[in-house]
Amino acid sequence: MAIWMPASLAFSPTSLTSRLPLSSFDFSLNAENGLNGLEEKKRVMVLGGDGFCGWPTSLYLSDRGHDVMIVDNLSRRKIDLDLGCDSLTPIASPETRVQAWKEVSGKEIQFHNVDVAKEYDLLVQLIKDFQPDSIVHFAEQRAAPYSMKTSKTKRYTVDNNVGGSNNLCCAVIDAEIDAHIVHLGTMGVYGYGTSGGEIPEGYIDVILPGGRESNILHPAYPGSVYHATKCLDALLWQFYQKNDQLRITDLHQGIVWGTNTPQTVLDERLVNRFDYDGDYGTVLNRFLMQGAMGVPLTVYGTGGQTRGFIHISDTARCIEIAINNPPAKGDRVEIFNQIAETRRVRDIAEMVAKLTGVEANFIPNPRQEAAENELDVSNRKFCNLGLDPITLDTGLFDEVTEIVKKYKHRCDPKKILPASFWNKKRAEECATLDPNSIELKDKEAVEP
Amino acid sequence: MAIWMPASLAFSPTSLTSRLPLSSFDFSLNAENGLNGLEEKKRVMVLGGDGFCGWPTSLYLSDRGHDVMIVDNLSRRKIDLDLGCDSLTPIASPETRVQAWKEVSGKEIQFHNVDVAKEYDLLVQLIKDFQPDSIVHFAEQRAAPYSMKTSKTKRYTVDNNVGGSNNLCCAVIDAEIDAHIVHLGTMGVYGYGTSGGEIPEGYIDVILPGGRESNILHPAYPGSVYHATKCLDALLWQFYQKNDQLRITDLHQGIVWGTNTPQTVLDERLVNRFDYDGDYGTVLNRFLMQGAMGVPLTVYGTGGQTRGFIHISDTARCIEIAINNPPAKGDRVEIFNQIAETRRVRDIAEMVAKLTGVEANFIPNPRQEAAENELDVSNRKFCNLGLDPITLDTGLFDEVTEIVKKYKHRCDPKKILPASFWNKKRAEECATLDPNSIELKDKEAVEP
Repeated sequence: MAIWMPASLAFSPTSLTSRLPLSSFDFSLNAENGLNGLEEKKRVMVLGGDGFCGWPTSLYLSDRGHDVMIVDNLSRRKIDLDLGCDSLTPIASPETRVQAWKEVSGKEIQFHNVDVAKEYDLLVQLIKDFQPDSIVHFAEQRAAPYSMKTSKTKRYTVDNNVGGSNNLCCAVIDAEIDAHIVHLGTMGVYGYGTSGGEIPEGYIDVILPGGRESNILHPAYPGSVYHATKCLDALLWQFYQKNDQLRITDLHQGIVWGTNTPQTVLDERLVNRFDYDGDYGTVLNRFLMQGAMGVPLTVYGTGGQTRGFIHISDTARCIEIAINNPPAKGDRVEIFNQIAETRRVRDIAEMVAKLTGVEANFIPNPRQEAAENELDVSNRKFCNLGLDPITLDTGLFDEVTEIVKKYKHRCDPKKILPASFWNKKRAEECATLDPNSIELKDKEAVEP
Repeated sequence: MAIWMPASLAFSPTSLTSRLPLSSFDFSLNAENGLNGLEEKKRVMVLGGDGFCGWPTSLYLSDRGHDVMIVDNLSRRKIDLDLGCDSLTPIASPETRVQAWKEVSGKEIQFHNVDVAKEYDLLVQLIKDFQPDSIVHFAEQRAAPYSMKTSKTKRYTVDNNVGGSNNLCCAVIDAEIDAHIVHLGTMGVYGYGTSGGEIPEGYIDVILPGGRESNILHPAYPGSVYHATKCLDALLWQFYQKNDQLRITDLHQGIVWGTNTPQTVLDERLVNRFDYDGDYGTVLNRFLMQGAMGVPLTVYGTGGQTRGFIHISDTARCIEIAINNPPAKGDRVEIFNQIAETRRVRDIAEMVAKLTGVEANFIPNPRQEAAENELDVSNRKFCNLGLDPITLDTGLFDEVTEIVKKYKHRCDPKKILPASFWNKKRAEECATLDPNSIELKDKEAVEP
């Protein structure tokens, strides 16, 4: 298996892949190698394919030999403009990205700048033209803090996410294409600390009054407007499956960490985005970035929140597994928990603190949530379908650290502290947080 | 208690009220009489206060002595333009309506033409200016058939209903007014025939795996996009109650029948709207209209659907009871089932057929739904708070019949058959239905 490695890489893919568990080697740059004779080449539309999860997933699917079309309105890049933030990594334009991928892999990825929530007719036309087997739906505003920032962002998140999901169902019906919808949900639909037992995959057995047994959609306990939209989506999927026999898979994903994947490292123009700000930076990546920058880790509250985690490479792998295992027509919505493991936030902070020598700084919690919770989650379905998930590994932390060090000159430390507060009370409790108080250590001090 | 009765009425309020059960007499035209010394005068915003339920509710609340502000973008009237339909009754403009009410009652109702789903800043300003104690939220697209008509109407229903409810929560938070939100939900959130036992009011006791007892929001089984939006709303209410301590009551209402109320009959300019078309006509009203017109009753499928019913006068009364019994700050969302009784559609058809001498015509079902279902629903909460509900009463049917006869010249018989089909299969099954086949009997033949 020949992999072309550009000289411009900050770290070599060899050093990356050598740290990855064996399970992460089942990709290649050749379709022939990518899909064995038993697997089917699919036509896959990736809505939101320019984003943090969407881009590496698109590359992975293309690398595996599938025909990929990206549909994205670049909303994530535009929100960065509004927030005065930017990806720590310098991401190329979509046109440059797909051109670079063609040069590296010889494969074409189509890119269409279309707003799934607003440009309905274009969406229908794309589906008719492309005739996808699967449509992967990442095209949602994905940050809980951003969704709680102001009434404007709350309203945008609901209108964009719910409107977009509804549009997708309508468009599949209108286009008369039996495409399998693969939607990115969130572990947050289940709520945290409300269950008292293992969280099953989507559906839970209950006994109703009178002793009647039933298997129902797990009750929804969203903790933010963002999480709420995924609960709303779930009811739309349920309805359209029942009414129109759409084939739908909902993936309740944990918190994603990591940056690059074996595909995005192949050319600097393919680099994945890396969010370090208080709104879009996910917790482990934020800690790794803070560790590398030499600033204290921002642990919210007691850090007693237990959450599900998954590495970005596994996101891509899970999507392909879902694509290859669609529900049959008439089957209820398929639901997978897309996580590798659960961890407590302060334990992760401790791991990163030990590794980098920075302190954990316990700051007031900007979120309305339980200070401490247990979390026991089933992920048996993906494991049974062959996923051998990547778990937290300080070796893999180095990859993120190297990226951060390479691009630390692009960091605006004023963006690190939380900038969105769940309600008035939380905002008041966080009033002492001063964005200007965060200073990066002297560059030399944090260089290896 | 002096009630002014305009000579222009087709039937006298005396004859109406004499047919109403005693419980319907607890209103008057004087604030002093309306609210006894123990009751509090409230400032009430009625979103959607120009509609079929919103208008008589606004008048009732005003009549009872509350300060009422109507907010409505006239979307219902505008949809009629799109459908080429019109209310059978000639409804006056909002300006004329509130002027007539002032003449009749001496009371002011404010009217503001604002789109709750789109004109967010105006909504916030209205709330700040009016300082409502309660906000009654009728401002949603309310017809299941219309919501299933085309992708355009599906998308409008989701964007308008969910976006509007989300806006309302955001606006109450932004305005910093602790207003009690009273939302009109639907019995359809529970689904029909899925429960197997009595449907409780909003929350159901369950035993989770491991024997853990819980009381959860009743699982959502919507049967149309319209019903789905009310399930989505329910999750938004749950979230904003938890996150922002909003005080919210959700009323899961049955199918409303009847037309006028003791207030709307006081002047012809106050007449309530009456929808007879296949999209907006509700089942019992549609049958009564068909009976009065001398055309066969359009029973969908076997007519085996059992549904909850409530008279329009009780809608208004229930809203006031809800307003007078808000949840305390911090209480979970209060949920009432707003129905008087359950009936099977073919039994209702039989009642109307017997009364009017027209035939029941069993036509293919345009809806994707169970052909037959049982329905056992609790409505104890409203009854415990003093509601003595009006049940199906052939005496009360006469009121609707008189209205229909008075305005039958306004009827377009081509609008009577179903014009929206739940999916491709149902559309195909209904292909033989010919809108032009419906002819009204000779006028004289149906006059009393």
